[in-house]
Amino acid sequence: MSELPADFVQQLHTLLGADLHRDSASLQAQAGDNSWREQRPALVACPRNLEQVQAVVRLCHAWRVPLVARGAGTGTTGAAVPTPGSVALVMTRMDRILAINPADRCAVVQPGVLNGSLQQALRPHGLFWAPDPSSFESCSIGGNLATNAGGPRAVRYGTSRDNVLGLKAVDGRGELIVCGGPWTKDATGYDLTHLLVGSEGTLAVIVEATLKLHPLPAARAGLRAFYRDAEAAAAAVARIMAQPVVPTVCEFLDARSLQLLRGNGATVPEAGAMLLLDVEGDEDSLPTLLGTVGSACEGEGLLEMDVATDGVARERLWAARRALSPALKTIAPGKINEDVVVPVSQMPALVAGVQALSARFALPIVTFGHAGNGNLHVNILYHPDDAGQNTRAQAALPEVFALVLALGGTLSGEHGIGLAKRDFMPAAFNPATLALMRAIKHAFDPAGILNPGKLLPPG
Amino acid sequence: MSELPADFVQQLHTLLGADLHRDSASLQAQAGDNSWREQRPALVACPRNLEQVQAVVRLCHAWRVPLVARGAGTGTTGAAVPTPGSVALVMTRMDRILAINPADRCAVVQPGVLNGSLQQALRPHGLFWAPDPSSFESCSIGGNLATNAGGPRAVRYGTSRDNVLGLKAVDGRGELIVCGGPWTKDATGYDLTHLLVGSEGTLAVIVEATLKLHPLPAARAGLRAFYRDAEAAAAAVARIMAQPVVPTVCEFLDARSLQLLRGNGATVPEAGAMLLLDVEGDEDSLPTLLGTVGSACEGEGLLEMDVATDGVARERLWAARRALSPALKTIAPGKINEDVVVPVSQMPALVAGVQALSARFALPIVTFGHAGNGNLHVNILYHPDDAGQNTRAQAALPEVFALVLALGGTLSGEHGIGLAKRDFMPAAFNPATLALMRAIKHAFDPAGILNPGKLLPPG
Ligand SMILES: Cc1cc2nc3c(=O)[nH]c(=O)nc-3n(C[C@H](O)[C@H](O)[C@H](O)COP(=O)(O)OP(=O)(O)OC[C@H]3O[C@@H](n4cnc5c(N)ncnc54)[C@H](O)[C@@H]3O)c2cc1C
Ligand SMILES: Cc1cc2nc3c(=O)[nH]c(=O)nc-3n(C[C@H](O)[C@H](O)[C@H](O)COP(=O)(O)OP(=O)(O)OC[C@H]3O[C@@H](n4cnc5c(N)ncnc54)[C@H](O)[C@@H]3O)c2cc1C
Repeated sequence: MSELPADFVQQLHTLLGADLHRDSASLQAQAGDNSWREQRPALVACPRNLEQVQAVVRLCHAWRVPLVARGAGTGTTGAAVPTPGSVALVMTRMDRILAINPADRCAVVQPGVLNGSLQQALRPHGLFWAPDPSSFESCSIGGNLATNAGGPRAVRYGTSRDNVLGLKAVDGRGELIVCGGPWTKDATGYDLTHLLVGSEGTLAVIVEATLKLHPLPAARAGLRAFYRDAEAAAAAVARIMAQPVVPTVCEFLDARSLQLLRGNGATVPEAGAMLLLDVEGDEDSLPTLLGTVGSACEGEGLLEMDVATDGVARERLWAARRALSPALKTIAPGKINEDVVVPVSQMPALVAGVQALSARFALPIVTFGHAGNGNLHVNILYHPDDAGQNTRAQAALPEVFALVLALGGTLSGEHGIGLAKRDFMPAAFNPATLALMRAIKHAFDPAGILNPGKLLPPG
Repeated sequence: MSELPADFVQQLHTLLGADLHRDSASLQAQAGDNSWREQRPALVACPRNLEQVQAVVRLCHAWRVPLVARGAGTGTTGAAVPTPGSVALVMTRMDRILAINPADRCAVVQPGVLNGSLQQALRPHGLFWAPDPSSFESCSIGGNLATNAGGPRAVRYGTSRDNVLGLKAVDGRGELIVCGGPWTKDATGYDLTHLLVGSEGTLAVIVEATLKLHPLPAARAGLRAFYRDAEAAAAAVARIMAQPVVPTVCEFLDARSLQLLRGNGATVPEAGAMLLLDVEGDEDSLPTLLGTVGSACEGEGLLEMDVATDGVARERLWAARRALSPALKTIAPGKINEDVVVPVSQMPALVAGVQALSARFALPIVTFGHAGNGNLHVNILYHPDDAGQNTRAQAALPEVFALVLALGGTLSGEHGIGLAKRDFMPAAFNPATLALMRAIKHAFDPAGILNPGKLLPPG
């Protein structure tokens, strides 16, 4: 049952025919994301091309009907959860790779292409797209761009924002915006491309992207180092980042993570922190590169270090890291997983502060993540059915953000804001900066129909 | 003689005292840039701190007086040339390096710091800031950011936009905007930081920047290769960019450039194109890295290749490239120097198209520049006093831009738009995209006082 005006629905139906859905299964399929939030849209529109997207936006604009762009719905912040009474604009049908151009190291894709499908198509060309969220097999490029998704490789190659050269997008009036293109240097007008990245469907609907590609490295080695404490590990990260050989991956696990892994039977030494690195290059240069990074790992507080130069050995080093997310569930079924960012030098203070909050709120908090970027996943674990734990977990969350902001960091490194962190935005930005973000929203979407209520708190 | 209301001038004087200037020498000193354009401002304001900047902007906002931020005035597009009746806001007094933080690989600077001064201050820390315009000794960081300045190193490290983590800026109402910070991953709200980069003082006045730094490489080698023609050189660039070892520099010289150098007595072989590369790493890895890049240079159409592993030999390779800009003056005193960008694969078509224009307009056109980014400097040479040549040079310019746009490129890679290319913006962007840029301008600067008439053509 849609509450939308019958004439609007009729006109939308004329536009989309069988690509407009209002059956219960279709509405339910587009109701949630990975944030545990859920809200059915009034209608589900599945456009197949730019013209349909523009026509739908124009109609919604004319009728002032909210429109929520959706990729694969794997986001963790509720950003893709429909506003009540909205049209869900599902972009997954626009899933063609339009061009792969090795000479210009770029690919042109529609937004519905899955990250994993693109990587597969690029492999024969010896190329890859850098953003590597763990969800890569199921999330869309459009969603990656709209959330500025990252992953472990970001320490070397940056996030989605750093790996897009141009965009085509439809603004809140249905106008086609074309910005950037297949070049890597641009001083021509305002940079709309990077502004659209991370805007969570609130400024425009992305309909095409020109992506920057990198050559696949020929050889890879892994390196795992255990440290006495977080301070010693953070000092090692600073040393690693202060020399010219940037590792492809530089992950951190705190003492609580290691304890958890040991409890689950993994062979992990008694240590206060662990770093896990990948170093990549060609067959000839890899040994020297690995030597350089290995030297940077050495120093005060290093307990033990393993190097893996072949694939099987590397997989063994990585096993503990991979076991971590599933292991969290063995402590408690509920998890608030934030992806805060602090300056690298503040990681020890973050870990210590988080453990103080863990004691204060009597809840386990496990911290690990992308150390090279100071982007740590803080996991507050609790039983959702236990009223006391539930309340304490919700109360601990603002304290985590307050800690992060006090350390000179920010709310999110790769997951975005959505609904989950929207109300913390005034703590992260001064009123003038928030007002300017609202003014920019208004410039793109004067009627306020594009994913309303996300990213920015109600003004 | 200022045409501004006496009350306004009085109030500005109360704010700035001796830091407000209206003597002829001060007005003249702020009248020009490197574009041959000139216009004296009505007043020159030299603020020493954020509070003064905010107060000046607020006053100009209240009185609707145009305000033109200026760095060192080395820009090439007229972007810093004052609007008639404007206040020139000279930012060079705010020239303090506020922090250098090696552990977080960042520096915090005021906008008036010169690029060269920053590099000097960073050297003892083993770090550098990547943007390396040839003007580095005289241009300001604020100007670099406002123009998205680049240089040869951009092929590996990106331009100014890729090397800024956070900004503080004063918008057109005098409000302080704070965005980004000392972290390298950010999915928190709209990306105002990168939007301000390249906005040429039309959106906000940059008052502080947190810059991303890189470790200085320990070792460097040079490589020079001559090719039969531009096609062969462009194919080599594609091969170089398709393998994982990215050179730090990858410069191109066309046949006309080589001819000019030979004419000036340089020992340069008869060749259709030249590439000049730098490869950097540590002492151990450099030989293998150099070998990899050298192999990529080899191929169809390679005539001759020299490698220089020590500093003196490298300087010899570079001598020809450095002799080029001065050599241009030996052909003709006048030069229209554009810095267009095309996809790397279109470089041969650009060079051929430009030579066709050279024949058609009977003027020498010399093309060289940053091949790894497809960012070529197209130099139309003419005698300004020769009316015919002058007219033909002006007529050739739009044809160069039309060619670039037809090849799927864009107007500027590093110099920006300013006054010089403003009127070509409608050729580069569709009306909806231009309208959106205007709406963004309005969001930052509702009264339209910040550097009016630059970057965007009159609406
Ligand atoms: C198991 C798991 C692991 C994960 N690991 C990571 C990780 O390592 N790193 C990481 O960054 N994220 C991770 N995520 C989060 C998530 O996968 C990413 O945010 C992803 O980018 C979302 O893509 P999506 O297609 O699912 O987008 P959706 O969830 O459908 O949408 C996300 C946002 O993008 C907008 N959007 C989608 N398509 C468009 C479009 N075409 N135009 C405009 N706006 C659009 C939506 O409106 C919404 O605001 C993980 C999620 C899961 C479930
Ligand atoms: C010999 C020579 C070689 C050059 N080589 C290169 C090169 O290799 N690569 C390259 O990219 N450029 C090059 N340039 C161009 C020029 O040096 C750059 O554009 C430089 O970034 C300008 O800095 P500036 O401080 O002189 O800025 P200005 O010329 O003073 O101003 C340029 C623009 O920035 C704005 N601006 C300045 N400061 C601020 C601020 N604090 N807040 C907001 N807006 C501000 C101005 O309003 C104007 O729009 C060269 C110039 C010369 C003369």
